[in-house]
Amino acid sequence: MKVAVVKESAPGERRVALVPEMIARLRGAGLEVLVESGAGDGAWFADGAYADADAAIVSREELLAQADLILMVGKPDAQLLGGLHSGQAILGLLNPLADPGLAATLASRGITAISLDGLPRTLSRAQGMDALSSQAGVAGYKAALVGAAAFGRFFPMLTTAAGTARPARVLILGTGVAGLQAIGTARRLGAVVSAYDVRPQTRTEVESLGGTFIELRSVGDAAGQGGYARALTDEERQAQQAELAGHIARHDVVITTAQVPGRKPPLLITEDALKAMTAGSVVVDMGSGPLGGNVAGSVPDQTIVTGNGVTIIGAGNLAATVPGAASAFLARNISALLLHMTAGGALAIDPSDEIQAGVVITHDGAVIQPATAALLAEASHGADTSGGTTP
Amino acid sequence: MKVAVVKESAPGERRVALVPEMIARLRGAGLEVLVESGAGDGAWFADGAYADADAAIVSREELLAQADLILMVGKPDAQLLGGLHSGQAILGLLNPLADPGLAATLASRGITAISLDGLPRTLSRAQGMDALSSQAGVAGYKAALVGAAAFGRFFPMLTTAAGTARPARVLILGTGVAGLQAIGTARRLGAVVSAYDVRPQTRTEVESLGGTFIELRSVGDAAGQGGYARALTDEERQAQQAELAGHIARHDVVITTAQVPGRKPPLLITEDALKAMTAGSVVVDMGSGPLGGNVAGSVPDQTIVTGNGVTIIGAGNLAATVPGAASAFLARNISALLLHMTAGGALAIDPSDEIQAGVVITHDGAVIQPATAALLAEASHGADTSGGTTP
Repeated sequence: MKVAVVKESAPGERRVALVPEMIARLRGAGLEVLVESGAGDGAWFADGAYADADAAIVSREELLAQADLILMVGKPDAQLLGGLHSGQAILGLLNPLADPGLAATLASRGITAISLDGLPRTLSRAQGMDALSSQAGVAGYKAALVGAAAFGRFFPMLTTAAGTARPARVLILGTGVAGLQAIGTARRLGAVVSAYDVRPQTRTEVESLGGTFIELRSVGDAAGQGGYARALTDEERQAQQAELAGHIARHDVVITTAQVPGRKPPLLITEDALKAMTAGSVVVDMGSGPLGGNVAGSVPDQTIVTGNGVTIIGAGNLAATVPGAASAFLARNISALLLHMTAGGALAIDPSDEIQAGVVITHDGAVIQPATAALLAEASHGADTSGGTTP
Repeated sequence: MKVAVVKESAPGERRVALVPEMIARLRGAGLEVLVESGAGDGAWFADGAYADADAAIVSREELLAQADLILMVGKPDAQLLGGLHSGQAILGLLNPLADPGLAATLASRGITAISLDGLPRTLSRAQGMDALSSQAGVAGYKAALVGAAAFGRFFPMLTTAAGTARPARVLILGTGVAGLQAIGTARRLGAVVSAYDVRPQTRTEVESLGGTFIELRSVGDAAGQGGYARALTDEERQAQQAELAGHIARHDVVITTAQVPGRKPPLLITEDALKAMTAGSVVVDMGSGPLGGNVAGSVPDQTIVTGNGVTIIGAGNLAATVPGAASAFLARNISALLLHMTAGGALAIDPSDEIQAGVVITHDGAVIQPATAALLAEASHGADTSGGTTP
């Protein structure tokens, strides 16, 4: 089987789905590796480094003609999608719950689609394949750096001849993988860190990183399935927003990390909460994206300043801005999944396997992943598909 | 005496010379405080905060008409300079050794100029007035953050389900106040840090911060006067550059901090050294400025990427990008110096005082600071004044 690595084309995307050091592992399993010329440039992996690891450097046309399986970071761009042919497979973070239409298209064209974001995340033998976690960790690290760099004062307490500066007060909203890594990084820099999550069972992890867990009186436990929080009711959400506002106003830097797969991210910081913040405060909105964000008025990939001097950074794809580390982790996740799904040098699709049942979205002309199939069935009955469209 | 705070106008300058919390101290010494409207905006100190501390908010015209002493961060802009009148005094980081012509102009117009950068830095009772140190410390902190944010991998060693990332190797060239703070911040973030300075006596400080001191075989002790390094000979410089190149190539992020007051900064990283670095490496040039930088090809306030993938950040004025902390420190330095020079609510100029002998550049129509006067005398005999010009 020929496994090919594509050069990403999404704006700001500097990651690559496979790094040179993983090639030996794939070749050891009987796979041949092709790499589109320039695929690793954004993450500083040169064509020569892939070639030295015995990958063949090819053009986009050669890749489309020869590849059995194409590895990618995000969704295929229009040109790639147009060039795929029946019997080929693609593997990446395809986000089918946000875009079930893409899955339908791929199925109708006879393409097998494997999406890392379908992985059952609570399964311990799948942890080494969990790209959502690995990328969230990278993004959380960067969010703390971005917040520190945008803040006009110090994160640590510093005592100098010119006096003592108090440490920054940093608040992390959402304590999944991204939130925990943001807590750890802000603590490394010496900030005083508080954190909140609708899942009170994350308190221990927050405290073990040196953070203080904030408990709200107005909202109880909202742990949902698969380690995610469930969606709050409108009443719960409003009570949460109002009570959080008081905490937010007492912090210098707030990092929000709340995402719900395939759905509009919850609004955690309202316009009123922003107005109560001090001039010079910084908000990093990691929930920011095309469907919205965690912060009122945040704009994806842009930095804005409110009338009362609060800087809001729309930072929905920070993993792409640490491309070396993010690509190295992603490549290990992809390689682990690929080796799990390969037998005798070829893909061995088996939807009865718990991992494959989550990640194999389309196969043999059909959308077979239950969650995506259910969304498409809803859509064909006229229900809302959460705004997803086929590119 | 009326002491006034001006709104800075230099590009990117967000600091302010006085913060609201210092006003009570000045008023306690019998000084009246005027603040130009908007002076603190860039550092998030609103006019209202100054007014609450009993400062009068004034226009630029009112300020020029009423002030006895005008506080500023950098040199006066053309409009301010044009509006000053005989008998007024100005106080800021005027950098007379880089621009002795400005001192001559101020003297000829009967303006008393006090410059914080003339302070005798080894005098322990002057430490609380040392603005060069306080601003260098802020800049060194930010340099480590800027380097970390631009680097495509992690600073700390991180172990995750997707594998372990090795810590970044960071090299700091120059271990003055800026370099030491950069070492401390990079260490906080978990990087492995090495440092080099021509003054081997800084080894202990580097080691106490958890860094490794690099000693070169080719260059001996080059400690100079006032805590600065002396200028190296051409032969010493070339030997240093060549030997450093080998160390530079083994590091992921290099922060250069070498400045010599009033002179072209030394070139520490040559084009050859850059060529030997790995793609994805980052260089933060804190020596970058109008007279040059520590890194071949660096451009002030710009980020460039070399043909072999090394990112070079021209970062000569990083203190201005942490305006809250930098202004708070600067305001304490300025207030301490001002109170030292004030008696009975008025300036008490006394060039026989060791501190005043350093900072009072012009008074009673003459350039009286010895170093600046010497530079001007040289210039009038046709010698090079290191490129300084009057704005």
